[in-house]
Amino acid sequence: MPEGASQGPVVVTGGAGAIGSELVRALLGRGATVRVIDNLSSGRREHLPRAPPDGLSLVVADLNAPAAYAAQLEGAREVWHLAANGDIRRGTADSRVDLEQGTLATFNVLEAARRHDVRRIFFSSSSVVYGWPKVFPTPEDYGPLEPESMYAAAKLAAEGLCSSYAHLYGLTAYVFRFANIVGPRMNHGVLFDFFDKLRRDPARLEVLGDGRQSKSYLRTEECVEAMLFVGDRASAPVNLYNLGARDRTSVREIAEKVVAAHGGRARIEFTGGARGWSGDVPEQLLAIDRVARLGWTPRYTSGEAIDRTIAELAAERGIGR
Amino acid sequence: MPEGASQGPVVVTGGAGAIGSELVRALLGRGATVRVIDNLSSGRREHLPRAPPDGLSLVVADLNAPAAYAAQLEGAREVWHLAANGDIRRGTADSRVDLEQGTLATFNVLEAARRHDVRRIFFSSSSVVYGWPKVFPTPEDYGPLEPESMYAAAKLAAEGLCSSYAHLYGLTAYVFRFANIVGPRMNHGVLFDFFDKLRRDPARLEVLGDGRQSKSYLRTEECVEAMLFVGDRASAPVNLYNLGARDRTSVREIAEKVVAAHGGRARIEFTGGARGWSGDVPEQLLAIDRVARLGWTPRYTSGEAIDRTIAELAAERGIGR
Repeated sequence: MPEGASQGPVVVTGGAGAIGSELVRALLGRGATVRVIDNLSSGRREHLPRAPPDGLSLVVADLNAPAAYAAQLEGAREVWHLAANGDIRRGTADSRVDLEQGTLATFNVLEAARRHDVRRIFFSSSSVVYGWPKVFPTPEDYGPLEPESMYAAAKLAAEGLCSSYAHLYGLTAYVFRFANIVGPRMNHGVLFDFFDKLRRDPARLEVLGDGRQSKSYLRTEECVEAMLFVGDRASAPVNLYNLGARDRTSVREIAEKVVAAHGGRARIEFTGGARGWSGDVPEQLLAIDRVARLGWTPRYTSGEAIDRTIAELAAERGIGR
Repeated sequence: MPEGASQGPVVVTGGAGAIGSELVRALLGRGATVRVIDNLSSGRREHLPRAPPDGLSLVVADLNAPAAYAAQLEGAREVWHLAANGDIRRGTADSRVDLEQGTLATFNVLEAARRHDVRRIFFSSSSVVYGWPKVFPTPEDYGPLEPESMYAAAKLAAEGLCSSYAHLYGLTAYVFRFANIVGPRMNHGVLFDFFDKLRRDPARLEVLGDGRQSKSYLRTEECVEAMLFVGDRASAPVNLYNLGARDRTSVREIAEKVVAAHGGRARIEFTGGARGWSGDVPEQLLAIDRVARLGWTPRYTSGEAIDRTIAELAAERGIGR
């Protein structure tokens, strides 16, 4: 790409997380100077790649304390705002988490971007803003949006803020509604949970819900590739894109694959009910025609993305050898 | 209606405002005990009707200080959350106002309602959540939602919170997207502004934009009637309804009517441009088929609602006599 180091540094919030650190690698690969802001609540310093000292910097700061990271935005050309509470279930027990780490954090990042005259903002939203939609695959213009979790409400609030900043203050906003993202360095999500449960009890895998929850899965590196692809080509005030695979796979299938990777001995037990947990949306399949029209499609099916990630996790943990 | 005093008090936030005080009158008329929470930033104590001392109470409190009004929610059956910053333009200059008085206030009200086991929440959203839509009249399932002001972003955020509280915690939520509401006791909006400008300079009326901004207008009492009508009949977890007139009228027409009511001597001057101000959405016409299918339709056209309100304002101020 012709874009790169010449136009000033790129800021990545949540850059030490699973998706953020993959993005940081890709941006460095394009020759960009990358400035990460991360509170390391779920991100890890060691997730960040080695880079020349002036190519990558990390400021450990809470996004709701803008003074602590204002210097990272000085002269920056764009901000990728990926930081969030990644644990949807946590928001049900503690209803303030997503308000603070989602809605307020996004407001503070946008304010900081505006004050520093940053021109482009990229935001990682989620399929959960659709709630439990009536149309599958669900297109970007589906409505009404009926979030079913505090996490989803915060993602919707943040989308609205990105839109209003774009229209009021002339920023260009990129909003991506992610399917389930799987890949290396994850510390939450269905695969992580299943591996964790089998580590604790190799004889039994408890699956929340009836196992028929069915969603699409996208690999981290494909997600990052798609976002950069859109950023290189779209330039409306607000650019909204679903990102996911064209198919979906059930939680039961995933459980069976994870058990097989562990040698196939564990008994799978379903807790029952349509939803995995309060606030879970049991069905998700995003229409990705919009990004496909721009020229990008995922290489992997949901099943392949899951297989690849299971193989990585198993190798990492020395399982099945 | 069979509903009424028997099921516990009704809480109205912003109950001293133009729409709130109209709602309070209607609720008292149904025999309800009404508890108002208002910070009197734009509401006025004298807007509230006289009522038996145990029929109506007012607590002056900021919604972001829940301890100050928690007692109002004790034993309440429902909360009508109407309080907000009513001045859309203010949010552009001070980007924090709508976050605090919109998004955060709604969060705090919902939290308080949940803690007090209130079963129903009514929320006054706005047509502005649609941004500048491509479809007119705009139905409730229109998407994507692209707010263009901080006020609009806060309304969208609050809608998402109502939805997530409904789905997570079992509240029933009523979300109303208002057209422009006109009627007595208003202290902002196009009619109020025009009367105010002509009071200061009877020879000249400056109109922001090119005058072709075209929107639908609904009388306060019709808006209140429609909300109560929906509350009596709908019971989904989230009940989303547009409320407006079936037609629209231009700012130029309104300006001409206001000038005529003042004797027709003022010169109308347009500042030019499609938008009245940064963040203004120049076109608004809501599809009201959903509420019509439930059995409610407005009696007045937009023009009639404007005429009636101009006549009231003129009489109140002794103009044209």
